[in-house]
Amino acid sequence: MCQLLGMNCNVPTDVMFSFTGLATRAEEHKDGFGIAFFEGRGLRHFVDHHSARVSPLAGFIRHYPIQSDNVIAHIRKATQGQVLLENTHPFVRELWGRYWVFAHNGNLKDFHPPLHAAFRPVGDTDSERAFCWLMQELAKAHCSVPSIEELSLTLAELMPRLNAYGTFNMLLSNGQALWAHGSTRLHYLLRQHPFGRVQLQDEDLSLDLSQHTSPLDRAAIIATEPLTRDEPWVAFQPGELKVFVGGALAG
Amino acid sequence: MCQLLGMNCNVPTDVMFSFTGLATRAEEHKDGFGIAFFEGRGLRHFVDHHSARVSPLAGFIRHYPIQSDNVIAHIRKATQGQVLLENTHPFVRELWGRYWVFAHNGNLKDFHPPLHAAFRPVGDTDSERAFCWLMQELAKAHCSVPSIEELSLTLAELMPRLNAYGTFNMLLSNGQALWAHGSTRLHYLLRQHPFGRVQLQDEDLSLDLSQHTSPLDRAAIIATEPLTRDEPWVAFQPGELKVFVGGALAG
Repeated sequence: MCQLLGMNCNVPTDVMFSFTGLATRAEEHKDGFGIAFFEGRGLRHFVDHHSARVSPLAGFIRHYPIQSDNVIAHIRKATQGQVLLENTHPFVRELWGRYWVFAHNGNLKDFHPPLHAAFRPVGDTDSERAFCWLMQELAKAHCSVPSIEELSLTLAELMPRLNAYGTFNMLLSNGQALWAHGSTRLHYLLRQHPFGRVQLQDEDLSLDLSQHTSPLDRAAIIATEPLTRDEPWVAFQPGELKVFVGGALAG
Repeated sequence: MCQLLGMNCNVPTDVMFSFTGLATRAEEHKDGFGIAFFEGRGLRHFVDHHSARVSPLAGFIRHYPIQSDNVIAHIRKATQGQVLLENTHPFVRELWGRYWVFAHNGNLKDFHPPLHAAFRPVGDTDSERAFCWLMQELAKAHCSVPSIEELSLTLAELMPRLNAYGTFNMLLSNGQALWAHGSTRLHYLLRQHPFGRVQLQDEDLSLDLSQHTSPLDRAAIIATEPLTRDEPWVAFQPGELKVFVGGALAG
């Protein structure tokens, strides 16, 4: 199984602490990693098919304080598709003049949907096929740019159709909202005032959030497994789709 | 005017030396930089809307020996569009299951083509509009994946239609070939055996290529202005489109 990490904030925030927690888990998920940061409509997208434990790129990102309001990261343990750069999550496509970023944890068996529209996979993973199919179905469902609420309704219809093929824990963002679907293993945490000291689950590293935040800051963190101790992580129910906007649950 | 750099090789090669030469020119082109490296079908894409002179990302790339057979880099001096991440070249889209990378030097006046298909600009530059229009017209001209020769013929028909709006020096690659169009200022160089010592034009830095190559290696370098002294750079004629495959001129 791969590991997912998502962050959605009301104020652009760096993700160095959480990414360090995620990268710690890269030992057993050594088939690459990737992370995408939205800055407004713009996107920074980093992928490497080497382990986040040894990749110079991961080392650089751990110390590069990119301020972003929507982040999606992934460390990979290949189930389908070779260990190649084109198979490394997150994947990116453009739709309606917005970049869309997608990462998947799970395994879709015999999922070969008809991809007759403008979105084709570059690599050979079930995950990228699922993303291309999602983009195709979103484009078919809405002739112009829908609201976040409308997108959430359409996605809620599409998720079970993918989940039927196996496990489908996923993160999706267009820079305005972050959608998370739990199939078997996904957790989220809403961080807000008052902020205290938090400690990484897997590493002897802690951070006093009150030193890095203002009282109005809000952040939602979504991860395969809780990344920190002593914070109220909530498990997704199987089949649950949640949408995060401005660091809070929407809808 | 911005500065372009492209590299097309028969053996994956790092571009650190040429990128150092390009980044030296970032002082007067301070509105961001970007570079994209193909590795087979996969892509590494780095953009920053800060000058390559001061960006930590540019510093990282200068010392990160990414081996690639097709590279496109760009340093930006904004003519249209604000200094924002989404306006930073090169731009990326997917078509026919391949990533396409595009960078532009020049200025297209009043270029607002009908973009009715699957490619929409995320930012607000003439360059990204031109790229979306190119992708749209390629997709319209070929119902399935064309050969490099067919793509070159279609691109040769499309280039004058863009050039009519102003200056259009551009680089385009899908990882199989690199197309370069010269409008006002573009040069190329074919590097092959015997390799000697080369010296950057703008910086007191030289490299003995024979220490880093084998006799069969070939590389084409395309740049706005020649990057090195004492090498046979060739100027593009106005309106000339060239396609580079395996480090050599094709067609």
